[in-house]
Amino acid sequence: MSTNNSNTRRQVRLGLFIQGAGHHVAGWRHPDAQAGSENLALMQRITQTAERAKFDMVFLADGLTSGPDAHPSMAMRLEPLCLLSALAMGTRHIGLAATASTTYSEPYHVARAFASLDHLSSGRAAWNVVTTSYDRTAANFTRGNHPDHALRYEMAGEFVDVVKGLWDSWDDDAVLKDKARGVYFDPAKVHTLDHKGQFFAVKGPLNASRPPQGHPVVIQAGSSGPGQDLAARTAEVVFTAQQTIEEAQVFYRDLKGRLPKFGREGQQLHVMPGVFPVIGRTEQEAKDKYAQLQEWTDTSGALSLLSDRLGHDVSKYPLDGPLPELPESDQLKSRAKLLTDLARRENLTLRELYYLVAGARGHRIVWGTPVQVADALEEWFTGEAADGFNIMPPYFPGGLDDFVELVVPELQRRGLFRTEYSGTTLRDHLGLQRPVSRYAGR
Amino acid sequence: MSTNNSNTRRQVRLGLFIQGAGHHVAGWRHPDAQAGSENLALMQRITQTAERAKFDMVFLADGLTSGPDAHPSMAMRLEPLCLLSALAMGTRHIGLAATASTTYSEPYHVARAFASLDHLSSGRAAWNVVTTSYDRTAANFTRGNHPDHALRYEMAGEFVDVVKGLWDSWDDDAVLKDKARGVYFDPAKVHTLDHKGQFFAVKGPLNASRPPQGHPVVIQAGSSGPGQDLAARTAEVVFTAQQTIEEAQVFYRDLKGRLPKFGREGQQLHVMPGVFPVIGRTEQEAKDKYAQLQEWTDTSGALSLLSDRLGHDVSKYPLDGPLPELPESDQLKSRAKLLTDLARRENLTLRELYYLVAGARGHRIVWGTPVQVADALEEWFTGEAADGFNIMPPYFPGGLDDFVELVVPELQRRGLFRTEYSGTTLRDHLGLQRPVSRYAGR
Repeated sequence: MSTNNSNTRRQVRLGLFIQGAGHHVAGWRHPDAQAGSENLALMQRITQTAERAKFDMVFLADGLTSGPDAHPSMAMRLEPLCLLSALAMGTRHIGLAATASTTYSEPYHVARAFASLDHLSSGRAAWNVVTTSYDRTAANFTRGNHPDHALRYEMAGEFVDVVKGLWDSWDDDAVLKDKARGVYFDPAKVHTLDHKGQFFAVKGPLNASRPPQGHPVVIQAGSSGPGQDLAARTAEVVFTAQQTIEEAQVFYRDLKGRLPKFGREGQQLHVMPGVFPVIGRTEQEAKDKYAQLQEWTDTSGALSLLSDRLGHDVSKYPLDGPLPELPESDQLKSRAKLLTDLARRENLTLRELYYLVAGARGHRIVWGTPVQVADALEEWFTGEAADGFNIMPPYFPGGLDDFVELVVPELQRRGLFRTEYSGTTLRDHLGLQRPVSRYAGR
Repeated sequence: MSTNNSNTRRQVRLGLFIQGAGHHVAGWRHPDAQAGSENLALMQRITQTAERAKFDMVFLADGLTSGPDAHPSMAMRLEPLCLLSALAMGTRHIGLAATASTTYSEPYHVARAFASLDHLSSGRAAWNVVTTSYDRTAANFTRGNHPDHALRYEMAGEFVDVVKGLWDSWDDDAVLKDKARGVYFDPAKVHTLDHKGQFFAVKGPLNASRPPQGHPVVIQAGSSGPGQDLAARTAEVVFTAQQTIEEAQVFYRDLKGRLPKFGREGQQLHVMPGVFPVIGRTEQEAKDKYAQLQEWTDTSGALSLLSDRLGHDVSKYPLDGPLPELPESDQLKSRAKLLTDLARRENLTLRELYYLVAGARGHRIVWGTPVQVADALEEWFTGEAADGFNIMPPYFPGGLDDFVELVVPELQRRGLFRTEYSGTTLRDHLGLQRPVSRYAGR
């Protein structure tokens, strides 16, 4: 497959969802797992592995709470911008996507940090915009209460606009460094945003020249109505959790259908569902691997974790009984709905639902031989249920090594995935245009 | 000089104050300067140079504003935590100090970012606590007004306490990673801070295990009364601008004299004045170098820069006349006082004052042969005017190379500076104890 080919034919996008302790709740207990939410050497190794396999990007989720009852991967996490700045040093091509909250940060700080990461990585930064679901976050930030879902999304919309405006503060050709004339930059090419909105007043300019990508790539994961509208208006990649191809196709069509009303086209936004792969040389080996992971799972905290995910306390219900009727949760709307729909459809007990959450947190589990896994990905890709996938290995580094050594070559053989990078920035990898500054031509 | 020796005999501490465009306002115009506020390769080179020379740390100032009239080194700056995380990757010993504001950030974010940098660098992080002087910063952060000096310092005191409390969230031995028993960490060793103060309410725990240094090193630079009290209570390094040995001795004695009332001893806080070195093989060569830099200085913006530094508009006064009488400025108290005292004492015109500001921004200028520069540093060090120095080269990388190749060996010959690192963390270099957790022994 030539470089030209990869420019003309639609290809699968691959992200690696990094979670130091592994995506399976018990993944860190695997004998080969190098457990470590704060293990830099592990993060370096898996990022370099993903780059060797020509992944589009690595991705870091985030949260702003912890506690004695938190899962290892949530209880402690290296700050994503710091970690990705470090990982940028050992890599040259792979995109670097970090999560930052629009509810608990400031547009100036966020714009600046991602501009810096984009400079440090020569154009590989992406910002995963989240509004932060967990209401207990407010208690860590001197806030009386956590804004409700609708309000958070209104704030997020304005926040993203301000950040994009700040990224345009400096024209691409503003910095001259003309030693002879003593002109470091052209002051006429520095712009003051002067934003005064409903939630934010931000004057600018940003203290960072225009990022190499113009704007770092914007990612979102909200699946609610307001989340989808925000994504359709502002995002270039959408992460999502989908269980069946039918659901995924509906989501894909719905989201892409929202683009025209914002003057955008389908290829300007990539839909990338999460995939939790369990790979064996035979189907039985994959099954056994999955069973082994489930065996290591400690069910003592099951109902607490499940309550957390559902946004409702289910701890007084029997573990082997059905999911009780629950009022709709405000704070975790789309995520909770996904789980309750799944439980109803598959007629799952609370224990079975917990095992699914423990494994892939509501994401699609794909298991089997490399050919079976590649088939499963190809079906969704060609069936317009996905433009690519956010890969969630059960444990690290072995779970990723399996995917990279066994499944990626199979996708490449089918011409579905690149064998070499054709550009240097994340926008290059994703086939996304570099945004023109709002001040261009003025 | 042996490693043992360095543990028993008081030695000079050296910091490298990084400023991509150089510390002299025209430093970037030097033919050998690799101008670049956002030039990662330059930052890597100078940090590695400082590490080869066995410096204690590199240091990044910061600010949260920009504009068409800003100096190149202020107009754009890579976010310090991102940049130091990147620089941590190419170095193994040198300390990494970043500035973060207590007025425009959140204790949870700051605690976390520095904990992450400390993890990523295996114990080399330091936080330079600033309250942010420039009132126009408020306009970038949806704030109606910039808090006044006294209020900012009250906030800063509480902010630092919260950050230190959050760093203690996890006991040093909380993380077990016991695969067989399925226990990643001991929940009894995770602590909730539950801070409810005048300015901040922060529940905790932090989502980061205890930093390798226990607490990253805390640095301050405030020279006002409240600034000195805050430093005496909470800081381990103090950066300061002092012009004469007499002034510096007064400051040194005053600051160290404040320690006992907080139950602390002299060696728990290092005073490190800024030094702007201009080095020649002969005295004349040094003089010529300095004159050359002044010649490149564009005086057209002189009165605006000077007004900015003084906190008062002096633009209607003649450039070759004396400094007019000015009311005391609130926002830039200690910095403005330093300049006005200097102008009165030396009977300087506004132009002469500007040249000093342009050169070293009020810091001590030391010029001459390597022996003369070493003499000047030794005098202050043995005279208890300083425990070390924050070196501010006029331009990069050449200005640093001069200091490292010519002055450092002279200091080492005199037994005043280490020839090898004797430990691995910044606390090791500075001879500072690792703080015991507030929860220890409970």
